[in-house]
Amino acid sequence: MTGALPMRVPAAGLPTRVRIHEVGARDGLQNEKTVVPTEVKAEFIHRLAGAGLATVEATSFVHPRWVPQLADAEALFPLLHDVGAELPVLVPNARGLDRALALGARRIAVFGSATETFARRNLNRTVDESLAMFEPVVARAKEERVHVRGYLSMCFGDPWEGAVPVRQVVGVARALLDLGCDELSLGDTIGVATPGHVLALLTALGEAGVPASAIGVHFHDTYGQALANTLAALQYGVTTVDASAGGLGGCPYAKSATGNLATEDLVWMLDGLGVETGVDLGRLTATSAWMAERLGRPSPSRTVRALSHKES
Amino acid sequence: MTGALPMRVPAAGLPTRVRIHEVGARDGLQNEKTVVPTEVKAEFIHRLAGAGLATVEATSFVHPRWVPQLADAEALFPLLHDVGAELPVLVPNARGLDRALALGARRIAVFGSATETFARRNLNRTVDESLAMFEPVVARAKEERVHVRGYLSMCFGDPWEGAVPVRQVVGVARALLDLGCDELSLGDTIGVATPGHVLALLTALGEAGVPASAIGVHFHDTYGQALANTLAALQYGVTTVDASAGGLGGCPYAKSATGNLATEDLVWMLDGLGVETGVDLGRLTATSAWMAERLGRPSPSRTVRALSHKES
Repeated sequence: MTGALPMRVPAAGLPTRVRIHEVGARDGLQNEKTVVPTEVKAEFIHRLAGAGLATVEATSFVHPRWVPQLADAEALFPLLHDVGAELPVLVPNARGLDRALALGARRIAVFGSATETFARRNLNRTVDESLAMFEPVVARAKEERVHVRGYLSMCFGDPWEGAVPVRQVVGVARALLDLGCDELSLGDTIGVATPGHVLALLTALGEAGVPASAIGVHFHDTYGQALANTLAALQYGVTTVDASAGGLGGCPYAKSATGNLATEDLVWMLDGLGVETGVDLGRLTATSAWMAERLGRPSPSRTVRALSHKES
Repeated sequence: MTGALPMRVPAAGLPTRVRIHEVGARDGLQNEKTVVPTEVKAEFIHRLAGAGLATVEATSFVHPRWVPQLADAEALFPLLHDVGAELPVLVPNARGLDRALALGARRIAVFGSATETFARRNLNRTVDESLAMFEPVVARAKEERVHVRGYLSMCFGDPWEGAVPVRQVVGVARALLDLGCDELSLGDTIGVATPGHVLALLTALGEAGVPASAIGVHFHDTYGQALANTLAALQYGVTTVDASAGGLGGCPYAKSATGNLATEDLVWMLDGLGVETGVDLGRLTATSAWMAERLGRPSPSRTVRALSHKES
C-alpha cells in the first residue's frame, strides 16, 4: 500500500487527542516467558519514548520472587533518567513504594481487583484488605506529590466468578479514587468484554461521579474484542487507553492468548480517525519488530506483522 | 471463564439481528495454500450450516486454472443438496453462470473492483469493461429469479493506487445496483480501513440512494481493524456482515496477514451485544478447530484459539 498508512478520515463524537499509556515494558514483559536483559529493557523504553509515547510504564517494584521478569527494577530505573517520557512504576505495597521513591519515581500505580477471587489469588487478601493495604501507600505518594494510578482488574469477567456486576466494579473504583488515586485503569483482564458492557460500566461510573477524564481503559485481545471495545470507550469520551507495544504479554501460540491490545493496532485506528497520539507508527512498529526478534517469536500485533513483512 | 461466553449487555443504536454471510468455504479456502479434498469441504459446509449460519458461500465457478483450490465446484455443489442454508456461489462470467445454473444454484455473486488497477490485475479489464461483462450475467440471473450479490473490492485502499476516493466507490456501487444486483458487499481487501472511513463511505452511499439494507461489509483484519470497522457499520445500520469461519483465508504466519474477519470474533461481539445471529458459537468454534487441524495450522481467530485451547 502506498505509504502503508491509513487514510485519515475523522468521525464525529470522538476525542481530538488520546493519551496512550504504554504497558509493554511492564505488563507485557511481565507475562512473557523470556527474561529480557536489563540493557535491552532500557533500550526498549528509550525507543518507545523515541517513537512518541509520552507515558511508558517502566517496571514493577514487586518482590523479585513473584515476578522474576521484573526483578531488575533497581538496576533498570536509573538507566532511564534521560528518557523523555513519564515513567510510572507499579508498586504493590509500602515497601515497593519506598524502593520506587528512593530511585526518584514520580508516578506510581497500585494494582487492585474488582473481584474477591482474583484479590485472594493475586494479592492474598480480600478486596477490602487490599484497599487497606493501598491506603498508606497512596497517602504517602500524595504527600510526595507523586501521581497515582489505580489498576482495577477483572472489571468485566473473572475466570472463577464469571460475569462481574457493574455495581461491584463501581464500588471498588470509587474506593480507589477516595483513597486518592488520580486515575483508574479499568482492566478486562481476560478479554471477555464487548462494547455494550464497556458503555454500561462507563455510564455507571459516570452516574457515580467518576468522569471520563479520570478513566483509562485496559483491554485484552483474548477474543479479538479489544479495539472494538476501545472505539466504544472513545465514543463515550475516554481519552486514556492502555496498550502494549507489539501486543507483548500474550504469546499468540500460547494455550490461552491473553495478550494486551497492541499499541500499533490502536495507533493505526487513531491515525485513521485523525485522533492525535503523538506516536510515529513506523518507529513504533520498528521497535516492536526489534523486540520480537529479541524474544525469538513474531509479534502478535497484526499491524506489526503486516508492516514488518518479516515472517515467512 | 464460567461458560466461556460473553455477558449479554446490549447497546443502543444497533440492529436487533445481523445476517452473517459466511465466506470461509469460498474466500477463505481460495486463499489457503492447502487444497482441501472435496469431501472435507462438503463436511465443512454442512457443519457451518449446522452451527446456525444461514448463508454459506460455497464455491466459485471460476476457471479451474485460476483458482485450483476451488476447481472441484462441479463435484462439490451436488454434495450440498441437503444443507439447510443459502449457498451462494461466485461466478466470474457467463460461462460460470451456465455451470452454476446447471447445478441448481439459486444465489450467485459477481466480483467487481472499485479501482482500475485491481480490475486490470484481477479481471484483466477496465472497471467499465468488467461491468459490461457482468451485465448479461446479472440480467440472465434475474430472469432465472436468482439472487445476485455484487462484490466490490478495494473500497478503501488499493495496494497500487493508495487511498480510494469515496466518490469512486459510490460510482461503481451504483453501477452494480443498476445492473440488477440485489445487494453489495463492500470489501476492504487490504484491511486498511478505519471506522471514520467506513462511516464516510456508508454515508456517501446513502446520499446516492443506496440503503443500508442493500449493503454488506467485508473487512479484512490485516491491521486488526475489522471488528472495530464492523461496529461502526452496525452503528450506521448495516445488518449484513461477511466473515470467515476461523479467520480462514489469511495465514497468520504468512508474509502479509490478509485474513478475513473471523466469524467467531464477530459472533462473540454480537452475542455480547445481544444482537441475534442464529449462530451457536461453541459449534462454530469446534468446526473451525476441526478445519484448522485439516489445514495443519492453528486458526488465526483469537476466539477459536482462546476457546479451543489446543495450541501449545
